[in-house]
Amino acid sequence: MGRRASVTHRYGSFEQDGVARLGVRYDDQVLDLAAALEPGLAAEVAGPNLDRLLAGGPPLWDRVFAAVAVLEPLPEHLYPLADVRLLLPFTVADYVDFYSSEHHARNIGRMLRPDQPELPPNWKHLPVGYHGRAGTVVVSGTDVVRPRGQRRTPEGEVVFGPTSRLDVEAEVGFVVGVPSALGTSVPMAGFREHVFGVCLVNDWSARDIQAWEYQPLGPFLAKSFATSVSAWVTPLAALDAAWVAPPPRDEQPLPYLDDASLAPAGLDLRIEISLNGNRVARPPYSSMYWTAAQQLAHLTVNGASLRSGDLYASGTVSGPERDERGSLMELSWNGAEPIDLADGSSRTFLEDGDEVVITATAPAVGGGLLELGEVRGKVSPTL
Amino acid sequence: MGRRASVTHRYGSFEQDGVARLGVRYDDQVLDLAAALEPGLAAEVAGPNLDRLLAGGPPLWDRVFAAVAVLEPLPEHLYPLADVRLLLPFTVADYVDFYSSEHHARNIGRMLRPDQPELPPNWKHLPVGYHGRAGTVVVSGTDVVRPRGQRRTPEGEVVFGPTSRLDVEAEVGFVVGVPSALGTSVPMAGFREHVFGVCLVNDWSARDIQAWEYQPLGPFLAKSFATSVSAWVTPLAALDAAWVAPPPRDEQPLPYLDDASLAPAGLDLRIEISLNGNRVARPPYSSMYWTAAQQLAHLTVNGASLRSGDLYASGTVSGPERDERGSLMELSWNGAEPIDLADGSSRTFLEDGDEVVITATAPAVGGGLLELGEVRGKVSPTL
Repeated sequence: MGRRASVTHRYGSFEQDGVARLGVRYDDQVLDLAAALEPGLAAEVAGPNLDRLLAGGPPLWDRVFAAVAVLEPLPEHLYPLADVRLLLPFTVADYVDFYSSEHHARNIGRMLRPDQPELPPNWKHLPVGYHGRAGTVVVSGTDVVRPRGQRRTPEGEVVFGPTSRLDVEAEVGFVVGVPSALGTSVPMAGFREHVFGVCLVNDWSARDIQAWEYQPLGPFLAKSFATSVSAWVTPLAALDAAWVAPPPRDEQPLPYLDDASLAPAGLDLRIEISLNGNRVARPPYSSMYWTAAQQLAHLTVNGASLRSGDLYASGTVSGPERDERGSLMELSWNGAEPIDLADGSSRTFLEDGDEVVITATAPAVGGGLLELGEVRGKVSPTL
Repeated sequence: MGRRASVTHRYGSFEQDGVARLGVRYDDQVLDLAAALEPGLAAEVAGPNLDRLLAGGPPLWDRVFAAVAVLEPLPEHLYPLADVRLLLPFTVADYVDFYSSEHHARNIGRMLRPDQPELPPNWKHLPVGYHGRAGTVVVSGTDVVRPRGQRRTPEGEVVFGPTSRLDVEAEVGFVVGVPSALGTSVPMAGFREHVFGVCLVNDWSARDIQAWEYQPLGPFLAKSFATSVSAWVTPLAALDAAWVAPPPRDEQPLPYLDDASLAPAGLDLRIEISLNGNRVARPPYSSMYWTAAQQLAHLTVNGASLRSGDLYASGTVSGPERDERGSLMELSWNGAEPIDLADGSSRTFLEDGDEVVITATAPAVGGGLLELGEVRGKVSPTL
């Protein structure tokens, strides 16, 4: 039988024999969690995906985490990953995308608005964000069809066709489990009461469509064609060794965003972006200016309610170094500096057939590194 | 028993004896539709709300419409509206808000960006839109808690507190029934294959929060605290006498938005806004520059998929006249021209306790007017 499979505390949804099931990763296998748990606990989480686990809240999350940690799975409950189809791990309620990397925001500002200050005036006062399209969040491995749309040429002509500036954005997503009531707010200290875990996100973007459409109400079709998430959600409980202090604030936050007296709320997640097998960037999530707890507090400060399955993403993760930038637009400096690949070709933006894989590791409890689930996607031509 | 109740072809969800049911309006009563239909058809639509009817598509919509038209309901299947609780009529999948009134867009441009052209350069080329928060769409009658948030004072200070510029936006919402596949587009001619009907929408807005947050990614917390929809959805089949030509285009649309050869796709919906019982505006939906079919074609032209329950709203409906403006911001010209109410008070923006009711009528098949379901909401203080 070889060495015993060891759990990695990543939850997902897989299809086996035509039935969708909640699974947990064991090396290169997936365990049918409801089959493996004791019946009482199994009955509380059984279902096609994480939805019931998410809704159960911290008491259930803790019991399942503890049970999984000591589980000795039977071979008949384990399936090789190669034999199963991975599904969207949870039903996405609302999807919000933030813009919380200072390096990314400054890069974009320098490229798109060179006549203005790099950061908009609100940027250090609040985590800028907007709503995306929940219905087009797809699981890792789903091909992404190159979107069509309007763009304006440098000569000022408005034309229509497949985007010629298809990009990626490497982000970290936070998965809400516990709802909140309309009209109330979730303070930063309530983060662990509401958020179950993290996934990786590729927020595909069509830069030419975006540049033409985004004034005055923000990105719309440039983003809504697809957002890929990893098939696996890592519970916060597995990230206890990864918390780090966020960068220093150089603007005093308003009280609802002031985390100076709270435990460090940054995360040492080390992201890598591969394009056709070439590592093109290694963005450090620890460099994000606004934390996930601040984002949650901001998202709800107006009384907006949370639902189980809400997903909010960090915004493109870009560090200070050139090879730490989380989008091709930044890596190629708006197309001016192509990226060389090992096969001798080069890229500014994505070509049909290109495959992008985003991975990440974090310090594990007890030493070493744990891997987050990858998010993978290949570009297919416009239909 | 008095005169016989007559159907108005508005569908909604009501709770009676603790059970949510699909209902259809009969004057001041609601008919338990699944109880009243013949068993075969009832089995296809029975449920707590419109969800199954929506997903059934045009063949089911037509059969139910035809059956309702000739139904002679039994008294035991009719409930006085005063005795039931109305619920959200359908499960909202994604919520998109457009910005398709030229008069509204010009008014906002003149007030907020007086140094720039009234319309953004893209405005006549595409229906500008963005995603809102589906999870905070609430049914008519739900109190709206005044949101808190950041704003910047005229002196440039960033402060936090309840909004002092709470506004309404009178809009028309379109309810998608039939999904579409990711990577494909729905042309304008597919509108009736996908859209079931219309509701009224109040897109509550906090103007001070919006002005500070909205650059560069669009409105977020200024809108996400609540969006009210009518409890009743009017099927397109009931609006066959309401189609009118939209205003002339003064910019040739790209082919996917060019409706010159299609049947008229504007709608003669005559909206009224009442504030504490005072009619303050009567915005004509027929004045909208972009039609609902164009909005749907644009929304999907990038390959974004539709889900049953998607809701997209027209954007604030404002006509050319002063009393046809669909928001208080326009009616009071950004607070400079208060609106006088019958009780001797005046308003620029909403005060706690204010109640706003949006109603609409349309030409009915066979003559006369039909009423759309109202959307009503009262402002309650910040919690």
